[in-house]
Parts: sequence; structure tokens; C-alpha cells
Amino acid sequence: MSSLNEFELIARYFTRPSSAQKQFPPMPWLRQGIGDDCAVLSWGPTALAITTDLLVEGTHFFSDVDPHALGHKALAVNLSDLAAAGAQPRCFFLALALPRVDEAWLAAFSSGLFALADEHQCVLAGGDTTRAPAQGEAAGPITVCITALGQIEKGRALSRAAALAGDDLWVSGELGGAALALQWRRAGTTDSIKALDSEQIQASMRRLERPQPRVLLGQALREKAHAAIDVSDGLLADLGHLCTRSEVGATVHWQALPRAQALTGQPVTQQQICALAGGDDYELLFTAPTAARADIEAAARDARTPVTRIGVITHSREVVVLDDNGERIHLAQRGFDHFA
Amino acid sequence: MSSLNEFELIARYFTRPSSAQKQFPPMPWLRQGIGDDCAVLSWGPTALAITTDLLVEGTHFFSDVDPHALGHKALAVNLSDLAAAGAQPRCFFLALALPRVDEAWLAAFSSGLFALADEHQCVLAGGDTTRAPAQGEAAGPITVCITALGQIEKGRALSRAAALAGDDLWVSGELGGAALALQWRRAGTTDSIKALDSEQIQASMRRLERPQPRVLLGQALREKAHAAIDVSDGLLADLGHLCTRSEVGATVHWQALPRAQALTGQPVTQQQICALAGGDDYELLFTAPTAARADIEAAARDARTPVTRIGVITHSREVVVLDDNGERIHLAQRGFDHFA
Repeated sequence: MSSLNEFELIARYFTRPSSAQKQFPPMPWLRQGIGDDCAVLSWGPTALAITTDLLVEGTHFFSDVDPHALGHKALAVNLSDLAAAGAQPRCFFLALALPRVDEAWLAAFSSGLFALADEHQCVLAGGDTTRAPAQGEAAGPITVCITALGQIEKGRALSRAAALAGDDLWVSGELGGAALALQWRRAGTTDSIKALDSEQIQASMRRLERPQPRVLLGQALREKAHAAIDVSDGLLADLGHLCTRSEVGATVHWQALPRAQALTGQPVTQQQICALAGGDDYELLFTAPTAARADIEAAARDARTPVTRIGVITHSREVVVLDDNGERIHLAQRGFDHFA
Repeated sequence: MSSLNEFELIARYFTRPSSAQKQFPPMPWLRQGIGDDCAVLSWGPTALAITTDLLVEGTHFFSDVDPHALGHKALAVNLSDLAAAGAQPRCFFLALALPRVDEAWLAAFSSGLFALADEHQCVLAGGDTTRAPAQGEAAGPITVCITALGQIEKGRALSRAAALAGDDLWVSGELGGAALALQWRRAGTTDSIKALDSEQIQASMRRLERPQPRVLLGQALREKAHAAIDVSDGLLADLGHLCTRSEVGATVHWQALPRAQALTGQPVTQQQICALAGGDDYELLFTAPTAARADIEAAARDARTPVTRIGVITHSREVVVLDDNGERIHLAQRGFDHFA
């Protein structure tokens, strides 16, 4: 056992010094490797963005999840990574471990998967299916691994590493809905979460189970934004990744943050936990020069996706959130880390 | 629950009629989709072969497996698919679900993984790490999903679908060692398996845990062989896949089959089960015109990989194994199917 977190684990065991690959031939076709939302390969005159995501029952989804929603989400989280690179989805590979063959489950899962794939004209090009073993009493767990490939037609991929001090910080859509749904599913009404009406529950569950990858927006931003990342671990965690890779800091204005409607009526601390540290929203967080504001707003209109300016990129190497009075907000929770 | 097998499952839920993608734009870049060892994409003037494999603790490996061997094997099974397409490994993506952070385990796993990757100059380009949930009492399972990409420099990828009646049927290396090790690990010495000496155990376990993907041979065969597949489900099962896709049959001569040395001394039925129906050998099974025999043997010498002619491709649409007297061998077991 170890206190190593997910990112330290990757750095220590799966990120190699360039000297380790000294004996390799030059790899001009590998434009970007580990450390961003996608790897990027040259693809003729264009580029190919590639990403992989693993969803495990009990960690990423409840055992009673609607399989149609699971099929949607398993692909959506990958398309969200492609969106953060500004890529157009092209094809994907599916690896699936199932404890048993349940035809109704499979029919719903594949239907949810292909509905989203068709929407983005993304074709299933290969895969692997296998049995998950019985673990003592329990069968399990259902595991879905998708690797998605997208095309970057011209120019560079969006990356986490290109933010500049002075950039505006933007986010698409709204934050906190998925985290609220997760808390509601886990705890029902508790001290920390006020009762939700059925409309708020539905809206939040939709955010958790059927995230909409911001594919059009990502492509529209490619020549206009500096840096981008998708919000999967939580705003502060993902902003932290972006700032670390770009060697900058950021100041976020809590008042400016677009929050899920269902959060209205929750205590402010609860709102902050969900919107700042809650994962699973799959919105795009991006930076752009102040001179590009009109361009960004036009791109967002073209992509029919709302965007909001929530702060600025700074020289400081620190991520700071300020409340309505300009005071720093301190959160115990900073975001999602699988091994924290 | 259902009696659907793995291949029916894929056909029913994940293989779509071409009409389902009618609204898609033309995809000239997708040279080959589902149904072969790899998908094949155009890659500038060359092509990119892509494959994905999922390994689950308890299904594909024992919980006490040496993590160095697991790191090797997780990549090896993917490189074996690239070999069957005749591709040169270029890069791979790793998704890993772990019940806990065990640094000694991770160090050994990544060391086994990178040792094989370096041997083939194949770079880790991205991935995902996540926690596997506790399942009741047990934690787990460890799950490894690798997607590997390889380059086909010129000409066509090897495929399962190109065998012609009259072709010789060839196999690389030797068969049955991995299946023998699996039986030994599962049962120890039983009625059906005679005692193995320590050298035989070591040799068989090496076949099971550290298969050597036939990467050089696959590339050397590309312009010479007709069809190819790697032997992962068992000779008869994989020969069946090749024949189905090529719309042909095959006759295999048991006497000609190269068997693992450790099988010597086992009852003939045991030898047949291991060599004909046992999976996990990761040898290449391929067909070539009779006129190409000298070319095939030269290619095998260049790749420093033994190859053996074991039969012929026929018009019959049936796979037949003949014993030393020309009588048909009937096996109850035909090979590996995860959902059988």
C-alpha cells in the first residue's frame, strides 16, 4: 500500500526519461505523447488525436446503471478528450469485460453507444470482449475500455500546455450538476445536501449519466484558444493540470462560475464542493487571449454551446478562487484522484 | 443469461449492417474494420494497424502472477495481433485498473512492459489509470487494457480473409506449451496429465507467461503469405476464424504439428487437447501458395523463427484433423470462447 496519488503513479512508473528511448529511431510522426487529453500522431497532411478511458463498475458507475446510459457515457468521456484536443471523432475501439451474457443489457448498451457514435459519425473499428470472473460471491465488475481516434484537419491540436499569463479563462456549459447527482445517489438527503425536487434530480442525473461531449466547440476553438482541457476530475483539479503543464497559475471568480440550476438552494459550501471539486461534468475549460473575446463568442455561437469567462491566467503558479468579496475560498476537497 | 458465444455476441450487438452508417461520409481512410486481428487505417503513403486487448485477473491471469511477466504479456498479446497483420509496432496506450497502489508490483509490471516495448521500439503514448473497486470481500480485479498501433510500410496488411484453396497451411514455433502450463497450474498432476519434470514446468510456464510475439516473421511474410492469424484461442478455433473469413476449409495433419517438448510423454489425447484446442501460444498461423515454399522458408530464416507446414487449405468449408493413419480426429474441445 502507498499514499502515491494517480498522477504521481503515472509520473513514477509510466513516464520515462527521454534517455530511456535513446536507442529508438526518431519518431517525427509522434507529435505529442503522454501528459495531455490526447496523444497526437501525424496523419498525412492532418493529425490523429488518440485517447483511452477505462470505466469500471463500482468506481465509475453504479451496478444498476441504465445500460443505454452507460453505452453513451463510455464513448462520451472519450469524445470529450477528443473535443479538448479540437479533433473530429473518426473511429473507436471497444474492450468489454462482462460477468455474463445478458442480451437485454447488451442490446441497450450497444444502442446507447451507437446512438452517440452515429451523432458524431464515429465508427466502431475493432475491439475485444471477454468474461469478467466471479469474485467470491459477487460477479464482476463490468469493465468498459474505449480508445477513440479523431482527426485534426489542419493546424495544431489544442493542448493543456499552451496557456499564457494574461489569458482569459473560459468554461463551457455549467458545472456541478454531475457531482450533485452523485451525492444524491450516494446519500439521498443528508445534512450536507438539501432536498431536491424531481426536476432537479432528473437534470442532475442526466448530467451524470449522459454528458454531452463538446465536440463542435473544441473544433471551433482550435485556431482561437490557447490551451484546453476537459473537466473530468473537477474544475480545480483540471485547472491545476492545465496550469502545471503550462507553467502558469490562475485566478477564478466564484461569482462568475456557471453553476447547474439544480444547485440553486443548496448551501454555498455544497455549491462550491460540487462546482469547484466535483468531477464528471465533461465541459471544456480553456484559455484565450483577451483580444480573442469576440472570436470565442462567435465560435461558441457557431457550436451552439454557451461559454463563460470565469477568471484569468496568472504568472503566480497558484490556482486561487475568489469569492464575491475578493476573499480566497479554501476547499478541503480539490477534485478527483482515483488513488487519493 | 444466454448461450450466445463470444463471436455471436460481437456479430449480434457490435457488427452493424452497412446501412446503419449510410449517413456517414465516405471513409476511404478506413481500409479494414471489425473482424480481423487488427483494424487498418491509411497513414500517409503507409498504413496503421490497430488492435486492442483486455486482460482481467482471474480470467486471463492468476492473482499471484509475477507482475513483470504480466507487464510483458499484456503488451505481447497486442504485438502478436500486429504481427498477424504484418505491422511494425510503433506505439501503445495503456489503461490500468488497480485495487490498490502497490509500488513493488507497479515497478515490476512497468519494467516487464517496457522491456518488451523497448525490444520492439514501441513507445507508450498515453493511457488511463483508475482504481478497481472492492467487490464484497475481495478487492479487484486487476484489469489491463492495451491498444497498440503498428505501421505497415508498404503494400497490404496480412488478413484472415485471403486464404485460397490449395494454399499450404503453416504455423510458427510450437503449440500446446501454454495450455499444458495452464492445466498444470490449475490441477497439478491429475489423471489427465502426467507428472512433469521441473524443466518441462519451467518451459511451459514461460510459454504461458512470456509469449514471444512473432513480429519479425509477420513483417517478413507480408508480401509472401496469403492469410494470417495469431493463435490465441487455440489452433482449431483460430483456423476456424481464418477459414470462415476466407470462405474455405482446411485439412491439418496431426503428425506434422510442431508440439511443445514438454508435451512429450503426455497421453495422446492430452497432447491433442493442448496442441489443437489450447490457447495462449501466440504463434502465427498462415497460408501461402505452394509455389512460395522456398520464399516462406527464407523469410522464416531471416526472422529467426521456425515454421512448419501442417496442412492445406481446401474448398470444403470444413476444418479436419487427420491422424497418422489418415483417420479424422474428433475433439470435444475446439478452443477458447469466453462465453461458451
